[in-house]
Amino acid sequence: MNQELFFYNSLSRKKEKFIPLNPPFVGMYVCGPTVYGEPHLGHARPYITFDVVFRYLTHLGYKVRYVRNITDVGHLTDEVEGTGEDRIQRKARLEKLEPMEVAQMYANSFQEKYDQLNILHPSIEPRASGHIYEQIAMIEKIIANGFAYVVNGSVYFDVIKYSKSNSYGELSGRVIEELIAGAGNERRVLEGQEEKRNKEDFALWKKASPEHIMHWPSPWSEGFPGWHIECSAMSTKYLGETFDIHGGGMDLLFPHHESEIAQSKGACGKPPVRYWIHNNMVTVNGQKMGKSLDNFITLEQLFTGTLLKQAYSPMTVRFYILQAHYRSTLDFSNEALQAAEKAYKRLTESYDLIGKLKTSASSTSDIKVLRQKCYDALNDDLNTAIVISHLFEAGRIINSVYAGTETITADDLKELKNLFDVFLFEILGMRYEKSAASGEDVSQLMELLLSLRAEAKAKKDFALSDKIRAELLKLNYAIKDEKDGTSWGRN
Amino acid sequence: MNQELFFYNSLSRKKEKFIPLNPPFVGMYVCGPTVYGEPHLGHARPYITFDVVFRYLTHLGYKVRYVRNITDVGHLTDEVEGTGEDRIQRKARLEKLEPMEVAQMYANSFQEKYDQLNILHPSIEPRASGHIYEQIAMIEKIIANGFAYVVNGSVYFDVIKYSKSNSYGELSGRVIEELIAGAGNERRVLEGQEEKRNKEDFALWKKASPEHIMHWPSPWSEGFPGWHIECSAMSTKYLGETFDIHGGGMDLLFPHHESEIAQSKGACGKPPVRYWIHNNMVTVNGQKMGKSLDNFITLEQLFTGTLLKQAYSPMTVRFYILQAHYRSTLDFSNEALQAAEKAYKRLTESYDLIGKLKTSASSTSDIKVLRQKCYDALNDDLNTAIVISHLFEAGRIINSVYAGTETITADDLKELKNLFDVFLFEILGMRYEKSAASGEDVSQLMELLLSLRAEAKAKKDFALSDKIRAELLKLNYAIKDEKDGTSWGRN
Repeated sequence: MNQELFFYNSLSRKKEKFIPLNPPFVGMYVCGPTVYGEPHLGHARPYITFDVVFRYLTHLGYKVRYVRNITDVGHLTDEVEGTGEDRIQRKARLEKLEPMEVAQMYANSFQEKYDQLNILHPSIEPRASGHIYEQIAMIEKIIANGFAYVVNGSVYFDVIKYSKSNSYGELSGRVIEELIAGAGNERRVLEGQEEKRNKEDFALWKKASPEHIMHWPSPWSEGFPGWHIECSAMSTKYLGETFDIHGGGMDLLFPHHESEIAQSKGACGKPPVRYWIHNNMVTVNGQKMGKSLDNFITLEQLFTGTLLKQAYSPMTVRFYILQAHYRSTLDFSNEALQAAEKAYKRLTESYDLIGKLKTSASSTSDIKVLRQKCYDALNDDLNTAIVISHLFEAGRIINSVYAGTETITADDLKELKNLFDVFLFEILGMRYEKSAASGEDVSQLMELLLSLRAEAKAKKDFALSDKIRAELLKLNYAIKDEKDGTSWGRN
Repeated sequence: MNQELFFYNSLSRKKEKFIPLNPPFVGMYVCGPTVYGEPHLGHARPYITFDVVFRYLTHLGYKVRYVRNITDVGHLTDEVEGTGEDRIQRKARLEKLEPMEVAQMYANSFQEKYDQLNILHPSIEPRASGHIYEQIAMIEKIIANGFAYVVNGSVYFDVIKYSKSNSYGELSGRVIEELIAGAGNERRVLEGQEEKRNKEDFALWKKASPEHIMHWPSPWSEGFPGWHIECSAMSTKYLGETFDIHGGGMDLLFPHHESEIAQSKGACGKPPVRYWIHNNMVTVNGQKMGKSLDNFITLEQLFTGTLLKQAYSPMTVRFYILQAHYRSTLDFSNEALQAAEKAYKRLTESYDLIGKLKTSASSTSDIKVLRQKCYDALNDDLNTAIVISHLFEAGRIINSVYAGTETITADDLKELKNLFDVFLFEILGMRYEKSAASGEDVSQLMELLLSLRAEAKAKKDFALSDKIRAELLKLNYAIKDEKDGTSWGRN
């Protein structure tokens, strides 16, 4: 913790020094997936970004409680406001499954991809459906404080009333008057819209229509929670009324995170979050990659190469994402992924050379300064792109020492290895991927050895053919001459 | 589904033909882990057993909804009745963590081990803490039907009253009069015991003491559910009031499953389960392996070899478990695991030979009869031990054909391969484990090739040395002669 770490805070719109409320403890909440579809490249970005935040804070010695939720209810189909049908229920209806079966299936898919991408488990992964009590309790507080009202069994947050004493728009920079003026113009009239006092109001609780499968009892109706309330309720439960970091994609900034602030202030009278951190989007031809735009590439497609020029390993995808600063947009292309694949291969090849370097009495490069440069880059709003550029510089030094054009001391060599171990593997969370030897590799080399042996025998060079057999036997390969060739196996 | 499948039903104490309620759908509920400790060998057995039930029913064409819960609240410390402290909360207090952090940590450990053991994901994995509403609703029904009573904010199931019109003990074979006579003799007087009308009664809801962290509102008190009610509530929610199969370890038969039946009949007036299936225990020197007896070996220890003679791969452990019928006890020993390891290696070695077999005009063995024998073994109460013995017979045939002492037709050869693919891999869920080629294997073979090349050069046999270099280049190995030897790399 002897590093001065700065994060860009979306709330203040500037970089701020990170000072946790109760060091060494840090509370971090990140909006997790709505489990109604396969994880795509757009999802990988926030989870990798905040995985690096988690890893870096842990590296610095903080005890981080990292909460990332699973939205398995309450995320309405329409982005702005509900048609009354839940995203997961809609998917269940389409797939003729129990909604929880759909949620489980996609939650499993996400977990599988997290593992492949070397994303660490958060400390707690709460599900919205498992925290209905907490959501109801928070809604009750908001009603008691006068910031929400009940209509026909549904509860809405009163944005206009809240705005009189608070600033709805403080996070997103939206001006409430403009919201009011603009409202309704571009929006369709949706079920429940006529119940609201103001167009900007959002649902905290929705009465379930008879065909709605997922519903719970509440003081207002058999119904289900609005989307925004789950994050407020679960973050408060596990991290307290005010906690350190709230993360998520920039697309969640409005209305989701703006509404979270309003809900927490409406319930507890204090700002919930000290540092709001948002990653920028993965784009395709400049447009946000997303399920609603149907321009997404699933991680499964990426890892298997379906519909693409080639398959990309999970570490290629992770490296591609970390090569950009998290607040820059990142445009998808085969070329960019191919470049990331090559770049990471180059870096690990340099790393592989470390054991082969010869040490000298002096070093031609200053290794220790590289270490501080890596810290500086992370401390400057988690600039992973710059960290990677320093690692390439380290790679360049290794290659030069190997080629004999530079020298390195034994101490600096250790430092160099440590630089990769700490920054590339531990903090950036890249997995060491030596292009794995395959059974095919072994077979090919064995075939070559057997053909050399056959040739030696044909030339009556039995010393050579016997030597090959004897050496292979030492390596536990048994070979057997048969009518139509030589077979081999492992002992 | 043209197979007549029989299961031993613990309720009727005999083998019964399996006829699902609503074919082709099958509902199956299995008691999952209490996530307050690391998974051990004792846990692997039920989850592997019911994984095979799930796989076999699916293979037969049934559409199985398989529900396996996660107990993250309500499993009281004392096996018989609560001291008022929850197992998970107790662990949290010891580890100074939020209870959900403990639950998450161990749930992750279990998932990791399931994956390693090739245990398929169930359709739904509900958590007890996420289904408090359903538990309260069921308790309300039981109270309304007169089978439970409220004392000081806690709710107890009235076993004596229930027994007047029902048979408490129908599953476990315990006789209620003996239960009454024996009660209290061997039990300590525990907190809350004095609230009960009868010693045999069990808690449906417990009022939380002030230091209790995990509690929810209810009509009776801020409190938490008893252990038994979660399985009744979640199985009813996802599978209906009566469903096909309920599984679990034999140690859960009483009081847990006995109480589940009482709760369901008490709430809905009908038997919840048609086929009760129980696996027998893993024992150590004849004693049940369990956390409470502190004689357990964690799966992590098994897989890494900690404290043992050697490490055992997940597939060795799976094979070891499947080599016994699920209703036999299975005593742990290094010798038994070593034997399983060797046996599975032998089986896969035979499988590996299939591609090398020569076909003939006739077969000396009847392969098709083996297939039906495998089905017969599974149909006879899932006798995986017998299935494996038939697979060894198939392995023997393969080895004999390879040695030239038996013959096989092309059709039978296909059948033979299919036998392994279907029974060993698909249904028994063994993962094909060819001893994976390692980077070391490749290095050793490369060193051998380079030494042959060096020798050829020394003898001025440049034709041979050039050939080796050229052939390696074709395989994308670049070699580089340097002052002190030859290095190589992949292109």
